[in-house]
Amino acid sequence: MARTAGSDGERTEAAIREAAVDLIARHGYEAVTMRQLAARVGVQPAALYRYFPTKEELLFTLMRAHMEALLGAWNDARPSSGDAAERLSAFVANHIAFHIERRSQTHVSNMELRSLSPERLTIILRLRTSYEKELRAILREGAESGVFDIDDIGLTAMAIIQMITGVIVWFRPDERLSVEGVTRTYLSMTMRLVGASTKREIHHVQAGTRLRA
Amino acid sequence: MARTAGSDGERTEAAIREAAVDLIARHGYEAVTMRQLAARVGVQPAALYRYFPTKEELLFTLMRAHMEALLGAWNDARPSSGDAAERLSAFVANHIAFHIERRSQTHVSNMELRSLSPERLTIILRLRTSYEKELRAILREGAESGVFDIDDIGLTAMAIIQMITGVIVWFRPDERLSVEGVTRTYLSMTMRLVGASTKREIHHVQAGTRLRA
Repeated sequence: MARTAGSDGERTEAAIREAAVDLIARHGYEAVTMRQLAARVGVQPAALYRYFPTKEELLFTLMRAHMEALLGAWNDARPSSGDAAERLSAFVANHIAFHIERRSQTHVSNMELRSLSPERLTIILRLRTSYEKELRAILREGAESGVFDIDDIGLTAMAIIQMITGVIVWFRPDERLSVEGVTRTYLSMTMRLVGASTKREIHHVQAGTRLRA
Repeated sequence: MARTAGSDGERTEAAIREAAVDLIARHGYEAVTMRQLAARVGVQPAALYRYFPTKEELLFTLMRAHMEALLGAWNDARPSSGDAAERLSAFVANHIAFHIERRSQTHVSNMELRSLSPERLTIILRLRTSYEKELRAILREGAESGVFDIDDIGLTAMAIIQMITGVIVWFRPDERLSVEGVTRTYLSMTMRLVGASTKREIHHVQAGTRLRA
């Protein structure tokens, strides 16, 4: 059976997006040209513009897809029951697993906010805020129910996100540490950071690790 | 008295470095040209090359100066006496104060490792390792003396550095928070992370804050 135009189109679009993430992560958004990208994908520059009318539209699509995938992954990983410590463990385990699999996308998303027009930047920042709100809600619930002991919900949320996103800067899974091992240690550090008790910590670190096994 | 050529030269070099940090932080290293940089500084392109024979030499100079300044600032801030908790407080307070004053330099230093040739990258990574070693030594000493309770010295050091460097991503001192307030909260979170006792924590958070007052 002949392949449909639709499926060819989807494959081409996926190839463009993948090549764009690689090139932008390596050279920076401004330095990458649509011509260079077309050559990498093996299509004519004119073909690119059928999928992405402008280079900024392409960047925006990549950044929005990254944040929507992160929100989607958390939606799937979020425990339907359990207390704040269990939900926090699931949040941290999901965040680390998601970002370790998407190093280049994460670099592009973090570095190239500078390259978005104000309206598009607003949309991306709104998605980021939705995600951060999920973490703040967990921290607030835990603090209110006495599971956690937290001074400042907002700063603690930012500290946790920076700490666990930072894993991708230095961690390579083929070194002395496995993804599971790193996740376990970061879960333990997160539980300390939010003032969860040691017994609780050990219980939930194990629960969180199972989510990723 | 006429200004000496040397002092003019120093001013020009400082102007080039400052403009380069701004342009690279905004556009990315590859997208910035020596011509664009010369125009920003108000000199002929040929004049730039007297100071920096290549664009990569300029980037390397900026990144090396950033790390040497950080090591120098820590050398000045390091307490001559006191236990591991006091030294850790001083380390965190110095790190936050240093990076908040150097947002663009920090972005360039973190983003553009990708743009260095292998030999120059090795030199920068060696400076980073020297700095991280200082933190690991504090954590190790604290763990050995029972002041801290730490699972993994190396991962905890990376977690702390990512967490406290992350302040510059979201924090603007003109918002609801002062540099002192943010530093105080981050010191408190750091002390939790390393398993320091609450009493100790409060004492050393105050000691650390005074360092920056």
